[in-house]
Amino acid sequence: MDYKKMDKERLIEEKESVFRKINEFKALGIKLNMSRGIPNPRVIDITAKKFSGIDVYTSRIHKDNADLGTYNQSLLAGIREAREFFAEILDVGIENIIIGGNSSLNLMFDMFSQLMLHGNFESERPWCREDRVKFLCPVPGYDRHFAICEYMGIDMISVPMTEQGPDMDAVESLACSDSSIKGIWCVPMYSNPDGCIYSENTVRRLAAMKTAAADFRIFWDNAYSMHHLFENEEKCVLNILEECMKAGNPSRPYIFSSTSKISMPGSGISAIAASTDNVRDILSRMKYQTIGYDKMNMIRHTIAFPDRASVSRHMKKIADILRPNFEVTISTLERELGGLGIAGWSCPSGGYFISFNAMEGCASRIIGLCAEAGVVLTPAGSTFPYGVDPLDSNIRIAPTYPSYDEMKMAAEIFCACVKYAVLEKMTAGGRDD
Amino acid sequence: MDYKKMDKERLIEEKESVFRKINEFKALGIKLNMSRGIPNPRVIDITAKKFSGIDVYTSRIHKDNADLGTYNQSLLAGIREAREFFAEILDVGIENIIIGGNSSLNLMFDMFSQLMLHGNFESERPWCREDRVKFLCPVPGYDRHFAICEYMGIDMISVPMTEQGPDMDAVESLACSDSSIKGIWCVPMYSNPDGCIYSENTVRRLAAMKTAAADFRIFWDNAYSMHHLFENEEKCVLNILEECMKAGNPSRPYIFSSTSKISMPGSGISAIAASTDNVRDILSRMKYQTIGYDKMNMIRHTIAFPDRASVSRHMKKIADILRPNFEVTISTLERELGGLGIAGWSCPSGGYFISFNAMEGCASRIIGLCAEAGVVLTPAGSTFPYGVDPLDSNIRIAPTYPSYDEMKMAAEIFCACVKYAVLEKMTAGGRDD
Repeated sequence: MDYKKMDKERLIEEKESVFRKINEFKALGIKLNMSRGIPNPRVIDITAKKFSGIDVYTSRIHKDNADLGTYNQSLLAGIREAREFFAEILDVGIENIIIGGNSSLNLMFDMFSQLMLHGNFESERPWCREDRVKFLCPVPGYDRHFAICEYMGIDMISVPMTEQGPDMDAVESLACSDSSIKGIWCVPMYSNPDGCIYSENTVRRLAAMKTAAADFRIFWDNAYSMHHLFENEEKCVLNILEECMKAGNPSRPYIFSSTSKISMPGSGISAIAASTDNVRDILSRMKYQTIGYDKMNMIRHTIAFPDRASVSRHMKKIADILRPNFEVTISTLERELGGLGIAGWSCPSGGYFISFNAMEGCASRIIGLCAEAGVVLTPAGSTFPYGVDPLDSNIRIAPTYPSYDEMKMAAEIFCACVKYAVLEKMTAGGRDD
Repeated sequence: MDYKKMDKERLIEEKESVFRKINEFKALGIKLNMSRGIPNPRVIDITAKKFSGIDVYTSRIHKDNADLGTYNQSLLAGIREAREFFAEILDVGIENIIIGGNSSLNLMFDMFSQLMLHGNFESERPWCREDRVKFLCPVPGYDRHFAICEYMGIDMISVPMTEQGPDMDAVESLACSDSSIKGIWCVPMYSNPDGCIYSENTVRRLAAMKTAAADFRIFWDNAYSMHHLFENEEKCVLNILEECMKAGNPSRPYIFSSTSKISMPGSGISAIAASTDNVRDILSRMKYQTIGYDKMNMIRHTIAFPDRASVSRHMKKIADILRPNFEVTISTLERELGGLGIAGWSCPSGGYFISFNAMEGCASRIIGLCAEAGVVLTPAGSTFPYGVDPLDSNIRIAPTYPSYDEMKMAAEIFCACVKYAVLEKMTAGGRDD
C-alpha cells in the first residue's frame, strides 16, 4: 500500500515493524562491501582459467613479424592482433585503434592531460590557457569520470539522463551556446549506473549537433558493450564514429574500451578508437610518453580471445553467474517496495549496476542505515559531479560482487533500510532510534 | 700515427685507402640497426625462459591477502611483493615505493604532466602557470628525457658531463641563481650514453646544493643500477634519497627504476621511489588516473625475481652475452683509431652504451657514412637537447643488439667511416666521393 495514503499512526506502526526487522538483520553480523562494480570471485575464477595455460614467452613472433618480447617503437599503437580485436569489437577500422595499458580510465586521464597541456588538433590553444573549460555530465553518472574533471579543474554541468540517454534538448542548447563547453561524458551501453542504452536518435543528435567549441569532444566510454545479462537480446548502440563521420564531425568522439570485466579486472588491455586525425594527434603525444604498452599482455589477450565471438561465449558464462544476482535484487525491490510510492529503480538488461532513486532527501540516510547493518554501498552523491546529489535521492547498487545468497540478503536489508529512512522522514519529528 | 702530424699528400693517400675499405664493406651488403639500446635476441630468449613456466592465474592470493586478479583500490601503490622488491633494489623503505606499469618513461612523463598541471606540494603554482620553466640537462644525455621537456614546453639548459657526473660547479651556480630552473635530469649509474657513475661528491652536492626554486626536483633515472658488465666489480651509486634526507631536502629526488633490460623489455614493471611526502603527492594524482597498475604482471615479476640476489644472478648471465660486444667494440676503436688524435670514447663497466666523441663537425657525416654502409646508428645530435649537438661530435654507440660477429664488423665499418669523415674534413676542398 502506498505509504502516502497511510495515516501517521499507521506509518509509525510500520516504522516500528521495520526497525525490528533491521535489528534482526544486524544480529546476523553481515559484512558485505558492495561499493564498487567488481565481478564476483566465481567470475574471476572462470576468467583466470582461460589465461592460466597460455605461454606467450616461448613463441613471441606474431602477425607483426617482430619479437613482441622487446622494444619496438613501430608498434606504438599496439600489436596488430590487439588492434584487429578491438576494431571488430567496436566496429571500426584497424587504423582507428590505439591499444593502451591495463586501464581505460588511464587512457581517459591521459587524454585530458593532453587536452589541458596541448589541446587537440582543432583547438586554438591548450585548454589550460582557456579562462574556463566546462564539461557536460549526464547524471547520474560515473564518479571516476567526474573526478577526472575535478582534478583537471574543469567545471561540470549536470544534464539529466533519460531512458534514451542524456536529455538531448539540454545538451544541444548548452553545447551550441557556450564555447567554453568542450565536451561531454557518455557511457552509451548499459550506462553507469542507469543501465540504459543510448537510442539511435540520441547518438545521431550527439553526432550532428552544433557545438560552439570547434574542438568539442565526446568521451564515449563504451565500457559495457559486451556485458549483456540476457543472452537472447544482445543489444548494441549505434556506431558513434560512423555517425560523426556522416555528420561531418569525424573527430568528435574519443571511444574508450577495455577487456575489464571481460578478462581479469585490473590486468586487461584497453583501447581508444577515433578518427585517423585523432589517432595521429594522440600518437604525437604517446611517442613522448612511452615506447609502447605491454605487448606481451596484448598477445596473451588475443590468444585467450581471438575474436568477438569468443568474447560473446565467455560473457554468456559470466552472465549466467551475474544474472541471478540482478534478478534477485530486482524481485526483492518489487516485492518489498513495489506499490509503496517511495522509490523507483532501473531494470537493466546488461552492465554492472542498478540505479535506485529513493524519495528525495533519503539516499544518504539509507546508505548510512545499510552500513550500520553491515552492507556498504557506493557513497551517496557519488553519481553526481563533486559528489553532491542535489535531491539526495540516487543510489548505485552494484550487484555483481556478492554471492547469490549474500545478494539476496543484502537486497532485503537494503529494502528495509529504504522503508525505514522514508518512514522516518514521513513521520517527521526526528529520529527515535 | 697522429693524423694532425701528417702532410696533406699523406692524408689524401690515407683517405683513398679508407675509401676503398668502405667500398669493400658496402659490397658485403650489411644491414644492421643499432639506433636504440635494445638487448639482443639471445638476452631476450634467456629472460623469456624465466617467465614461460610461471602461472600467476591459478593462485592469486599473496602477501596482501587479496585476490590480485581483480580491482583493489587499496593497492594503488602496488602489491607488497613488488614494493619490497624495488625497496631492496633501490635501498629505500617500502613506504617510499610506488609501482608503475610497463614503462618508467611513462612514469616520468606522468610526473611532468602532474607538475605542469598542479605542481608538487612545494610549488607555489602549477608549472604551466609560470612564465618560464627550465630544466638542467647534463650532456650528452638521453634523447627521450629531452623530448619530454620539449613536449612540455620546458626550456633546456645544457650542462657538461664529466667523468664524475654533471659539472657540479655549473649545476650549483645555475640552480641557486634562477628560480625558473625547476629540476635536473640525471642517469646516475652507467649514464646514458657516457657510462659514468656519479661520484659520491657529485651526489652529495646535488643533495645539498641551494636551489632558487623551492619545488626543485631531481629526476633520478636509475635505469642501469643492476646492469654491470664485469661481475667482479659490482659498482653502485650513493643513495640519493638518503643524502637528500641528510641534507634537509628529503623531497628533492624522484627516483625511477624498472625491470627493463632485466626482464622482458617493454613488458616489465616500473617504480618510483621518493620521500613519503612525495609518495603522498603522487598518489593524490594517481587515484584519479587509475585504480592501479597491472598486479598480475607485478606478481609474475616477483616470482621470476624474488629478490636482488636473483636479479644479480640473471644479470651476470646477460653480461656474459653483452660483454664481448663491448670488448670487441672498444678493442676495435683502440686498434683502428688509437693514437690518430681524432676521437675519444668511453670504456664503460656497465650500462648499454659507449659514448664516442669525434673530431668536431664530423658526427653527422660519420653517421651518414655508416648508414650508406648498412649500419644505422642513433641520429647525430640525439644526445643533446632539441637534437642539436653544437660541436657535431658526439655519437652514441649501442653495442647490445647485434650478435658478436655483427658487432665486430659494425665496429670496423664505424672506424673506417670515422677516419674517412675526418680525412675528408682535414683535406678540405669538399668531398670527392
